[in-house]
Amino acid sequence: MNYKNDINYLAMRLGPGDDPEIEVLDQRKLPFRLEYLKLSGLADAATAISDMIVRGAGLIGNVAAAGMYLAAKEYAGRDDFDGRMLHAGNVLKATRPTAVNLSWAVNRIMKEMSKGNGTEDKMAVALEMVRKILLEDDKMTRSIGQYGLEIIREISRRKKGETVNILTHCNAGRLAILDRGTATAPVYAARDEGIDVHVWVDETRPRNQGARLTAWELGKYDVRHTVIPDNTGGHLMQHGLVDLVIVGTDRTTRTGDVANKIGTYLKALAAHDNGIPFYVALPSSSFDWAIRDGIKEIEIEERNGSEVGSISGWHEDGEVAVRLVPENSPVKNYGFDVTPARLVTGLITERGVCKAEENDILDLFPEHK
Amino acid sequence: MNYKNDINYLAMRLGPGDDPEIEVLDQRKLPFRLEYLKLSGLADAATAISDMIVRGAGLIGNVAAAGMYLAAKEYAGRDDFDGRMLHAGNVLKATRPTAVNLSWAVNRIMKEMSKGNGTEDKMAVALEMVRKILLEDDKMTRSIGQYGLEIIREISRRKKGETVNILTHCNAGRLAILDRGTATAPVYAARDEGIDVHVWVDETRPRNQGARLTAWELGKYDVRHTVIPDNTGGHLMQHGLVDLVIVGTDRTTRTGDVANKIGTYLKALAAHDNGIPFYVALPSSSFDWAIRDGIKEIEIEERNGSEVGSISGWHEDGEVAVRLVPENSPVKNYGFDVTPARLVTGLITERGVCKAEENDILDLFPEHK
Repeated sequence: MNYKNDINYLAMRLGPGDDPEIEVLDQRKLPFRLEYLKLSGLADAATAISDMIVRGAGLIGNVAAAGMYLAAKEYAGRDDFDGRMLHAGNVLKATRPTAVNLSWAVNRIMKEMSKGNGTEDKMAVALEMVRKILLEDDKMTRSIGQYGLEIIREISRRKKGETVNILTHCNAGRLAILDRGTATAPVYAARDEGIDVHVWVDETRPRNQGARLTAWELGKYDVRHTVIPDNTGGHLMQHGLVDLVIVGTDRTTRTGDVANKIGTYLKALAAHDNGIPFYVALPSSSFDWAIRDGIKEIEIEERNGSEVGSISGWHEDGEVAVRLVPENSPVKNYGFDVTPARLVTGLITERGVCKAEENDILDLFPEHK
Repeated sequence: MNYKNDINYLAMRLGPGDDPEIEVLDQRKLPFRLEYLKLSGLADAATAISDMIVRGAGLIGNVAAAGMYLAAKEYAGRDDFDGRMLHAGNVLKATRPTAVNLSWAVNRIMKEMSKGNGTEDKMAVALEMVRKILLEDDKMTRSIGQYGLEIIREISRRKKGETVNILTHCNAGRLAILDRGTATAPVYAARDEGIDVHVWVDETRPRNQGARLTAWELGKYDVRHTVIPDNTGGHLMQHGLVDLVIVGTDRTTRTGDVANKIGTYLKALAAHDNGIPFYVALPSSSFDWAIRDGIKEIEIEERNGSEVGSISGWHEDGEVAVRLVPENSPVKNYGFDVTPARLVTGLITERGVCKAEENDILDLFPEHK
């Protein structure tokens, strides 16, 4: 691969050459405005993640990688380069606590950089790694798409070509992980093959990533879909209107417990209660090989209550935030929940599909035995 | 009881005498504005229900009753009074399809009116019935409160006086059924007794009755509470932060299947998965004695998609609706779901608590055997 070319994805762009422009799509503005922001340094990258200009387990790893390159560019030639880079890595890792991809990307770049000779060389190594990680992600999501496609194909066959209805929660799409998403990759692959698919999109309160992002990207790529409140999925499943659930994950244990956007656990319960397959699509970088009990061991991010107390949307010529909750009522805003492995039908990874069980997972990833 | 006095509840007011003013609190404006609207005729009552100026199974029954009186007042002395009243009853019953209380209230008034002599007398009978139904509801909710209080008291004792955390969905409060609500009645009773209670309030998308109404009324009556997205309850239950779930119902079968606000089923699944008691508080008027299979037999209202595509809230000096979903994305808006009896720990009625099983229900209500 020639890592010097420009890379143009919907969610993130890198220019060509040795000093490329790096831009990210400002996802806070979607679906009402399409705006790219330039990342000029470490601080921009860190803010892009912590302020959720970018979000999605894969993409924040990509931006953290870019942040390491931008830090190296800032620090090249200065004293204590390695110490500064260590600090930069810690800053990036601290931007959001739940997704494992942040430290995965940062550590990987640190390791490669340590092989470089001198700060200029280390900076070049970092840039090459950023490009490499982005292209790897693209390839990896296409592989997830192909494995997931087999599941959809089978349902379509069983339904004699009738619409396959897939429910998803939050956004594990092209806006979350380059370039086909994880949960959406099998959907895009099915559409490419001409299978009749329709996606139920949970709006995903409080930040409405489903209504804002998943609906928008599915619309952009001509996938038939319907937005529903998060409360609706159980009813649909009771009435045979869901054939399959596919979600993403921010962190999955070696035993198959799945941390994902708050509310995922409720959909897994409903799928289980109605005998509907519930799959989690993930790259191997989303496994946390060090932990076994997701509910006890995965730290759940608590976010600002203003995301619950208010919501922003489009009004006449611009976006405004409106208050939803009485001024004196407290709110709580947990970002994720953990779906126990027993409720997960299978994991769709870039190496194939496995059960959400340690032995089955390790058969696919024997290097973590 | 002297039915000639005025009746002053938060959600509905009747003036004194033979030609009382009837006012309802405009719940669409809460929590940001407190505005009462006068009901001047049948059409006002029907609109108040269909436009959700009032909502809640009990209250819409009350307003339907008032609508019957207002219709009688309009038609008194005119030809074909009985035929007109039959039509008025049908208009009121058709305003919303899921709650059983509408036809319960209308049929009851029709039956009493049929005993009257002449249209003026029938009108007076209707008015007396309206007052009677309101006062009965008040008494009935207090009785539900006392029976539910025993459950809360027991948990408080087991927790040695530590906070009892109760989760509720939607609004089955004083704004839904006069005067103490159903799901909230045990909570208010516990607070009156000095038990330390705290309520997790599901915001209840798409119409946000939890965030707008339940939070507001709990705040007004000094009950400690926290508003959470509908996605959050499962996570709280996994972490021991919920001791008890109490919800209301719009229609419950003789076998204990519970139709309630969309999303209730998901909370029942989570409660069941975590061994947390899940109770439904209801007046006997919310039973539909004619049906046995809630999922197959209860018609689920589908409401306008604009409730999902947009949301209204407070912005600077007024309430505005903002768009949440891309213009080209379709939406679906089911009003209710059905929680199967197997997930319901018990029913709290005005006659006591019973299991969600036909035999147990009929032991309390033997007249429906």
